[in-house]
Amino acid sequence: MTAASSATRAITLTAPPSISSRVRTFHSSGCERLTFQHRRAPRVATALRMPVRALSQDELKQQAAWKAVEYVKSGMRLGLGTGSTAAFAVERIASLLKDGTLKDLVAVPTSIRTYEQAKSLGIPLATLAEQPELDLAIDGADEVDPMLNVVKGRGGALLREKMVELASEKFVCIVDDTKLVEGIGGSKDALPIEVTQFGWDYNLKRLQSLPELEGSTAKLRRTKDGEPYVTDNSNYIIDCYFENGFIKDAQKAADVLSQMVGVVEHGLFLNMVNVVVIAGSNGVEVKDKIDLVKEQGMGEA
Amino acid sequence: MTAASSATRAITLTAPPSISSRVRTFHSSGCERLTFQHRRAPRVATALRMPVRALSQDELKQQAAWKAVEYVKSGMRLGLGTGSTAAFAVERIASLLKDGTLKDLVAVPTSIRTYEQAKSLGIPLATLAEQPELDLAIDGADEVDPMLNVVKGRGGALLREKMVELASEKFVCIVDDTKLVEGIGGSKDALPIEVTQFGWDYNLKRLQSLPELEGSTAKLRRTKDGEPYVTDNSNYIIDCYFENGFIKDAQKAADVLSQMVGVVEHGLFLNMVNVVVIAGSNGVEVKDKIDLVKEQGMGEA
Repeated sequence: MTAASSATRAITLTAPPSISSRVRTFHSSGCERLTFQHRRAPRVATALRMPVRALSQDELKQQAAWKAVEYVKSGMRLGLGTGSTAAFAVERIASLLKDGTLKDLVAVPTSIRTYEQAKSLGIPLATLAEQPELDLAIDGADEVDPMLNVVKGRGGALLREKMVELASEKFVCIVDDTKLVEGIGGSKDALPIEVTQFGWDYNLKRLQSLPELEGSTAKLRRTKDGEPYVTDNSNYIIDCYFENGFIKDAQKAADVLSQMVGVVEHGLFLNMVNVVVIAGSNGVEVKDKIDLVKEQGMGEA
Repeated sequence: MTAASSATRAITLTAPPSISSRVRTFHSSGCERLTFQHRRAPRVATALRMPVRALSQDELKQQAAWKAVEYVKSGMRLGLGTGSTAAFAVERIASLLKDGTLKDLVAVPTSIRTYEQAKSLGIPLATLAEQPELDLAIDGADEVDPMLNVVKGRGGALLREKMVELASEKFVCIVDDTKLVEGIGGSKDALPIEVTQFGWDYNLKRLQSLPELEGSTAKLRRTKDGEPYVTDNSNYIIDCYFENGFIKDAQKAADVLSQMVGVVEHGLFLNMVNVVVIAGSNGVEVKDKIDLVKEQGMGEA
């Protein structure tokens, strides 16, 4: 297998119980394509000639989450992410603990929400001080660039997520394929920046004019009621939108943001992700940073 | 005047009303020394032969604060510091506004305490967003090193202070001479680091083992009741004590701390102070960064 072909691997999984047996191979885009790709026997092709229901967003998320949980081994110390995709992983881990497939796990949640979910499902929990070195973190992401740099924080838990994921030896990110971008900011959706309440409006103006965020529009995140959104750490979030392109130099932007007084944390998670599990209409794919780095090295040579 | 002599200038001030006329020259260490330094006429020397009461800490602070307020000119946008020394400056500014010596000032306070003091004294106030560019900030400091790098935050307002003082064209620091140290950490008192409540105990351990803070002991700041001290921004403070020396490389430590997830701000204010006004038993001295840089350049040449 060449490095190029190993970087993106199509995976065949056992379907979660909620998913129709017709789409056990996780191809929902139509039977012709499926038949071509898998050279199936006529019996299967006949079965697939039936109109195939497209997987819902939730089903895609669940598939990716289940794949990510395959990285969990008994005895591990885990970081548990926040958000709808991560919630599927938490649920899956709890179920594998219950049926005895996994044993002796302990997990550090990245938000109050995840803490409550994991606790209610009986996953043994710890704080980061109790478990300062984790084996594996599993979490969603809002954007993934070609080198697996990600944007996180649209769910509001970026600080806790970053702290837990930096403490983890391996970080597996779960996304659906709508999260893949050519460059950070490419989704036209928010790059979240957590700021102290004091001086938030001053920092909004500064962020708006920061050369490293050129081309972006900064907005205070608000709740449905129009009130400023307040994080678990009592801070506000300023969302930066790159409406006409990408961030120029994500590393430079990250460095400048980290130095800014009143910026508590930012949603740029650079060089942190080891593996991305992507659920899409073509099935579940796994991208591994090691393969990408190898490929890049071969491209340059 | 040589650069060496200009860097430290002895200043003679008009005594604040609360200070005895016997110490109008601000020398309280004894009349011999005073006579020698100022070559006063016998009449004054006779007067000073009376036993001179040593200035209290508060009187020293007040003298320095009044000197610092000489930098305030009508029409300025000011940053107002926090702490007992800065409070004297706020009081003085209010009094000069009241008697018409100063006009058209507007000030951004660095804490709720300073906001309340300034408001009650009738100083026109603004937020940093309303006045994002300030002319002058006046504030105290906890330590001052020979190049006017300072430690701040023992009063708990480091984040707001740093934000306001970075927004100021000029930053005048007011201290008494007990705050002068050979190197950052030299007072054996705290280098404060503001951290999020989430993960504070994890970060305490990390700070404790950080090579850039080698030789320091990290402790969570607590109130008299033993509860964690909570800042205006709902964070905790970890105080680092260099019990056997100084910080090795303050700039490196500052860079590492700024990058640490969960560290909201730190008390290293490096290359920010333009002028330090020092009240001591020898009078009020002014140290100007420009003179120190010139001196250093001459020393190197």
